[in-house]
Amino acid sequence: MKSPNPNPPQICEDTMLPIITTFAWVPPFARGFVRDIRARWACEEVGQPYDVVLIHNAKTPEHRCYQPFGQVPTYRDDEVEIFESGAIVLRIAERAGQLIPADPAARIRAIQWLVAALNSVEPFVMAIAVNDIFEADRDWSKARHAKVAEDLQARLHDLEAALGDTEWIDGDVFTVGDLMLVSVLGGLRGSQQLDSFPKLASYVERGEARPAHRKAMADQLALYAEPVAA
Amino acid sequence: MKSPNPNPPQICEDTMLPIITTFAWVPPFARGFVRDIRARWACEEVGQPYDVVLIHNAKTPEHRCYQPFGQVPTYRDDEVEIFESGAIVLRIAERAGQLIPADPAARIRAIQWLVAALNSVEPFVMAIAVNDIFEADRDWSKARHAKVAEDLQARLHDLEAALGDTEWIDGDVFTVGDLMLVSVLGGLRGSQQLDSFPKLASYVERGEARPAHRKAMADQLALYAEPVAA
Repeated sequence: MKSPNPNPPQICEDTMLPIITTFAWVPPFARGFVRDIRARWACEEVGQPYDVVLIHNAKTPEHRCYQPFGQVPTYRDDEVEIFESGAIVLRIAERAGQLIPADPAARIRAIQWLVAALNSVEPFVMAIAVNDIFEADRDWSKARHAKVAEDLQARLHDLEAALGDTEWIDGDVFTVGDLMLVSVLGGLRGSQQLDSFPKLASYVERGEARPAHRKAMADQLALYAEPVAA
Repeated sequence: MKSPNPNPPQICEDTMLPIITTFAWVPPFARGFVRDIRARWACEEVGQPYDVVLIHNAKTPEHRCYQPFGQVPTYRDDEVEIFESGAIVLRIAERAGQLIPADPAARIRAIQWLVAALNSVEPFVMAIAVNDIFEADRDWSKARHAKVAEDLQARLHDLEAALGDTEWIDGDVFTVGDLMLVSVLGGLRGSQQLDSFPKLASYVERGEARPAHRKAMADQLALYAEPVAA
């Protein structure tokens, strides 16, 4: 980054594991949805151990040195320091030589689906969450819900057609594209938005049932297990 | 793709130039904003000639073989066939060995900014366009404008702070990250949303003043120059 933190955490560069930064605490409705899950999941898929650095406030000047929008996760390894879950997942995959096919055409299609998840699907998933949760107190929120849901359903319809009857989005190999699509669609967990799309729902189930996802999710949720009040 | 078009255009594979697919016609308000500009711009930056295939309707089953969401652009070269402007720009850059630094850390930061443009900036740019243009006839559109603008302004504030006083987003080298950020912010052209952010506005101006962008934009606009009525 151009403006490095003047007081970086002291880390032994020689022996460091990759570090994923995430929130020390989030409200109950956000648990299981914090985007560090994507970095954790990628690490678990490729067998890469990692450390977690917890922060209480992402809006500080220190954290914005690493994440200009004041969000999580950030990621650091012995060579790079980055934010943006899509780039982090790509980095973990490329570093390990896994989750991305070697064939040039299959490789760029995997990246294509990672980008599609983030740019062509996630905005619709986020729009309904923002409208129904974060903007629930606005005068227009209830009236707008139907339009937001209609747009999302149209997008899910197209995505289900693209998935067809294959196991993963580009065939029978699980890639970073699937990891990101499943994670983005996982943002609909607890809603009924996938009810009309059995193939997509099964696809998300298949992805979330992978041992690497289960481990990553359990680790995120364990972080937010409330201590019993004394 | 898993479901290739049963009737693909006949192309001589040996001599083919990369092909960018875009719309034969768009309404005046969309001219200069069609996302083929990103693919065109990347080709011009790296000196890669390309052909354009024009379609009248992106919602046909044939086109959805190449773009499941029924949008443009799509891209094809002698090795790959993809959609999603972020992946297309990355492909053009990697194929040419340009617009992406060779240093691993600088390389992934360039990709990080490309992803950030698409996932952390564009949804806010699109939200205000959708609210103010495509949803202008909804009861809630006017009342909602202030909230959408407030969210966008906050995001632009953070992005301007990240840009600081450097020429390009990661320093003095123009990369795919800049190409995508400038293109995404170009979506605000004609609005007053950048008025409070002189550094960002200058950044967009610098990007759009590059000869490669001027050529790409001129070529897109030439496509939509209306013939004089006979």
